[in-house]
Amino acid sequence: MIKDTLLKCGAIKTGDFTLTSGKKSKYYVDIKESATDPAILAEIAAKFASLIKSEIIGGMELGAVPLTVATALETGKRYVIIRKERSHGTKKLLIGTFKPGEIIDLLEDVVTTGGSVLKAAQTLRDAGAVVERSICVVDREEGAWDMLKENGIELISMVKISEIL
Amino acid sequence: MIKDTLLKCGAIKTGDFTLTSGKKSKYYVDIKESATDPAILAEIAAKFASLIKSEIIGGMELGAVPLTVATALETGKRYVIIRKERSHGTKKLLIGTFKPGEIIDLLEDVVTTGGSVLKAAQTLRDAGAVVERSICVVDREEGAWDMLKENGIELISMVKISEIL
Repeated sequence: MIKDTLLKCGAIKTGDFTLTSGKKSKYYVDIKESATDPAILAEIAAKFASLIKSEIIGGMELGAVPLTVATALETGKRYVIIRKERSHGTKKLLIGTFKPGEIIDLLEDVVTTGGSVLKAAQTLRDAGAVVERSICVVDREEGAWDMLKENGIELISMVKISEIL
Repeated sequence: MIKDTLLKCGAIKTGDFTLTSGKKSKYYVDIKESATDPAILAEIAAKFASLIKSEIIGGMELGAVPLTVATALETGKRYVIIRKERSHGTKKLLIGTFKPGEIIDLLEDVVTTGGSVLKAAQTLRDAGAVVERSICVVDREEGAWDMLKENGIELISMVKISEIL
């Protein structure tokens, strides 16, 4: 089970935490650090592989990139990286190619309000892709599911934080 | 041969190009786009796997991340991502863990003057790692080899641009 793996490796910790924002939290989640262990990364990628339906997958810079790359290798599917917009940005926002109308499932490590998923989906949609699904490792359940649903995106999560607490 | 693969998939193109800097060039190289094809990525990762000697590998944000992740999965070795420094940077510069004195080979897609390799090596060294080797897909041969040598880093490349032109 992904949930047990994430708890065991410390990707999800329960207790009393003060987040960098100053907000208090009953848990802490960080997939990026744990994904640097290839055994954990491979387990997450296998789970993604069982959940994606599209022929091309997308992942947002930077946290989703290792997950997306590992899933691409696991499935043989091509990937697209969606870069973050920079104030000085002259760089293009997408790395990887697709044809107009091609379906892209969006992969993410942790989803909170869903804002960054929606932004990435819009970048892909503006470039002609069809984005109807996003799959994340952990849904912190702070409104993302409803908000994304309203924007035509089904959010699928491996672990909901309410299952942990 | 990696060289043939890179030419065939368009990662290296010869001709007359004007770079974004305005500079003229007899070739164009972009590994990032080609690496979004998992077959090409796997071929590059297999070559990296044959060249690395360390138990942990490092890769710089963003271009080297897919290569580093794929090589970690190929070899079962853990990886460290070295982030770019941002002006507003409150985020830590390293994702992934290692012990003081552990050896890290640095992976890179394209090396030009070697400046970003040296900067990443210094970030790792400041955190206690030993960095003595960097392995890149393409060496543009604009001074990196000598400069890195002077800084205690051996640069190993899969393809030297002089082999193409």
